[in-house]
Amino acid sequence: MKRAVVLVIVWAGAARAQSNPAAQAARQWRIAHEHAIVDEFVSLLSIPNIATDRPNIQRNAELIQKMMEKRGIASQLISVSGSNPVVFGEIKTPGATRTIVFYAHYDGQPLDPKEWATPPFEPTLRTGQLEKDGQVIPLPPSGRPFDPEWRLYARSAGDDKASIIAILTAIDAIRAAGVKTNSNLKFAFEGEEEAGSPNLERTLAANRDLFRGDLWLMCDGPVHQTRRPLLAFGARTVVQVNITVYGPSHELHSGHYGNWAPNPALMLAKLLASMKDDNGRVVVDRFYEGIEPLSETEKRALGEAPDVDPALIEEFGLGSTEGAPRKLAELITLPSLNIRGMASSRTGTQASNVIPATATATLDIRLVKGMDPRKTAERVIEHIRKQGFFVVNTLPDRQTRMAHAKVALVEAKGDEPATRTPMDLAISQEVIRTVESVRGPAVKLPNMGGGLPLTSVERPLGARTIVVPIANHDDNQHTFNENLRIQNLWDGIELMAALLVR
Amino acid sequence: MKRAVVLVIVWAGAARAQSNPAAQAARQWRIAHEHAIVDEFVSLLSIPNIATDRPNIQRNAELIQKMMEKRGIASQLISVSGSNPVVFGEIKTPGATRTIVFYAHYDGQPLDPKEWATPPFEPTLRTGQLEKDGQVIPLPPSGRPFDPEWRLYARSAGDDKASIIAILTAIDAIRAAGVKTNSNLKFAFEGEEEAGSPNLERTLAANRDLFRGDLWLMCDGPVHQTRRPLLAFGARTVVQVNITVYGPSHELHSGHYGNWAPNPALMLAKLLASMKDDNGRVVVDRFYEGIEPLSETEKRALGEAPDVDPALIEEFGLGSTEGAPRKLAELITLPSLNIRGMASSRTGTQASNVIPATATATLDIRLVKGMDPRKTAERVIEHIRKQGFFVVNTLPDRQTRMAHAKVALVEAKGDEPATRTPMDLAISQEVIRTVESVRGPAVKLPNMGGGLPLTSVERPLGARTIVVPIANHDDNQHTFNENLRIQNLWDGIELMAALLVR
Repeated sequence: MKRAVVLVIVWAGAARAQSNPAAQAARQWRIAHEHAIVDEFVSLLSIPNIATDRPNIQRNAELIQKMMEKRGIASQLISVSGSNPVVFGEIKTPGATRTIVFYAHYDGQPLDPKEWATPPFEPTLRTGQLEKDGQVIPLPPSGRPFDPEWRLYARSAGDDKASIIAILTAIDAIRAAGVKTNSNLKFAFEGEEEAGSPNLERTLAANRDLFRGDLWLMCDGPVHQTRRPLLAFGARTVVQVNITVYGPSHELHSGHYGNWAPNPALMLAKLLASMKDDNGRVVVDRFYEGIEPLSETEKRALGEAPDVDPALIEEFGLGSTEGAPRKLAELITLPSLNIRGMASSRTGTQASNVIPATATATLDIRLVKGMDPRKTAERVIEHIRKQGFFVVNTLPDRQTRMAHAKVALVEAKGDEPATRTPMDLAISQEVIRTVESVRGPAVKLPNMGGGLPLTSVERPLGARTIVVPIANHDDNQHTFNENLRIQNLWDGIELMAALLVR
Repeated sequence: MKRAVVLVIVWAGAARAQSNPAAQAARQWRIAHEHAIVDEFVSLLSIPNIATDRPNIQRNAELIQKMMEKRGIASQLISVSGSNPVVFGEIKTPGATRTIVFYAHYDGQPLDPKEWATPPFEPTLRTGQLEKDGQVIPLPPSGRPFDPEWRLYARSAGDDKASIIAILTAIDAIRAAGVKTNSNLKFAFEGEEEAGSPNLERTLAANRDLFRGDLWLMCDGPVHQTRRPLLAFGARTVVQVNITVYGPSHELHSGHYGNWAPNPALMLAKLLASMKDDNGRVVVDRFYEGIEPLSETEKRALGEAPDVDPALIEEFGLGSTEGAPRKLAELITLPSLNIRGMASSRTGTQASNVIPATATATLDIRLVKGMDPRKTAERVIEHIRKQGFFVVNTLPDRQTRMAHAKVALVEAKGDEPATRTPMDLAISQEVIRTVESVRGPAVKLPNMGGGLPLTSVERPLGARTIVVPIANHDDNQHTFNENLRIQNLWDGIELMAALLVR
């Protein structure tokens, strides 16, 4: 296991001496209060937090509000019709000339408890990673420190309640140490990020003054796979495209009609095959048009990012990568066109001797800054037309199907353009310096591959966003047995303390 | 409904005067015994007959044996280990110089009773086609004739118990009229045709003398869509090919890894797209090699076959056909390569934002005479290799997947070569003349598109086979609400009488 070795070597860096004063204060506070910190974390993790579970979502929001009020932070729950509340809090700093907003979310991914080794809302400590035989242990008795390699298992342990605990603990620490901050501080903890933040933009637009800030620090996601701190200055957004193509009005006997009745699975295969070349480049006309090129600083940052490809290739058992020899970190600064799934009739032992009646594929297109979501969808639709399809956007009737050799129902969804905060901005440079003063050299990515509601923040408020994660990369976010490595919480507290103070 | 008009015009031909003496005798007998004939049919249809339902299969076989013995036909049940019995019967004709074997099958397609309008094993009479508002009626009182457009609904009404009833009734009729036959007659009624005749060849090989005959008349399937009689001189056989291609070892987040991790759905799409050109021609190297060309007689017969394409295009709601402008009847004399189904991860509202881990397609290849099943499978596998895949025949391990950019698990099944009896043979010409003397001009196809166990008969016995169906083409065979149009049974009795006597 080459990869494990790499990680151990890197991890040795985590125990480094702390020279950032706020982070130093945070470390001292944490060492003295480990049990109280974990107890508060456990209380928060014990409340189920699936976005659709309104009563429990409300309980989460109210507990976080109480946690703020206990610290003397003015707090309120902000909702628009149909939304889960955003827990808002604010610390005003006399004479401050700028406002930093700390974003996190308290809802978690939907789950099936049957898949979990221990119940997802009964936070459980283990001596290490479950996959590496980590054993369940009780919380240590008061006065005994936590082993930093222990892990706390619960839904949202990593994604994203850890960030909330880290921020609030950091406030305790800097206050106790009398470290001064020079910014106004705001806190916005969302309750439906895992549901796609359907109401965030509307909530912020309806409460512009309340949420206004110069910079939103999006405290979410995992740190780099090498365990080095990570800063991401943007994210990709998604356009989802559903394509259904049509053969006969019902499945036909493949013996009687095979070779004569058109096969929709083959039509779909040819269509999908036409969309990308053999090196993974999307060949839809003008697909890459408008993309904002990377700056020299961004290119340099990419060049400095550790090469995680060999370790990931090993982890995922890959025989090749798309776009090689370019690396993952660079490739995610480009848009993608991905087939999420494909279906036509049945396969294997379930297959019948038929010509299927329909074939469907669901794609996602990940956009980067400069691409227009609507134009991108139109270009894909135009590409489908160029392959000979008559494109409809509602279920085609019999007459339509008979009038055209090939008919495709295409449904596109998603209108959020991607955003990217320039690394060259003074405020970006300051965040980088702060993070590196606490945790050493950071991995700086122009954007993450996945999504975060950056545009929902930037568009209504005109703010900038930078993503500052604290969770371990192997936290099983979005799946079962989610967990947080204790050291990642400790490091997160120090990082948040430094960011609160700058 | 253009098509309905066509059918009505054609059907007028069914009431034609009967000049074939055996068929004339059959008609007289039938008119006098309609109730008894239908009663016997209803008894046979009332026994469930799914091939895996051994106790009921046995009951079917024993009833048919009794029906033969009632007629003084020596009968026995012939099995090999693990097989359902073939009901065998024989009528020896002193001085006969040849033997004709009448084949039919008494098992039926698997079914889900919930899909049926009336229970599949409670034969139910309707005033017409269910889809055209045919109403359930009781059997008419004795002495009142059956309307020929009535339909009897039950599993195997069309496929294939009607043939058994037609044959046995025809024997009654010619005996009653004292019409002499000049052949030895044998009867072989199979009990697992719908399960793919897994034991037929072995059963015949183990009982060669018993089953030997110059010609096997395969009384199965539907007549032509125009309702004209149909003779098919061959069938296509099947090679099934299952292909699975591989991406990451588990589904990956399409945001984090989309554009970098290889997508198996795209790989599969490109592979399938590479197999056929835009006119439906298979572009696998040497795919068409060895095919026995059609004779002049076969070509002429094809040229004379009615053009059913417009009616079928209308019925299936097609916007195009593969291989156009060539017609269905010609195209099924060529091999096909058909995608039965395709699957990768999930689609539509079930889709997740993932790069799938695998993608699978199940194909069927329909072979025609002259093609070698094993070589055909090898050529397809070679084609897959040429597309850059490392081909395995068992689940590839991690090491194998990592050692090759593209890995495909390919499983091919089916080793039966297709057969075709020349239309020019004296015995073929005689069958054609007999059928046409009873029912007027027949549609003569070099082969059917679908399968029948012709090779399983020809290979062990060295016999010839010709397919002589009697059921209506719209009998819903292989699906729910299977039915037989009464006139098709009446016509079938006359046809079988003539064939028994020749």
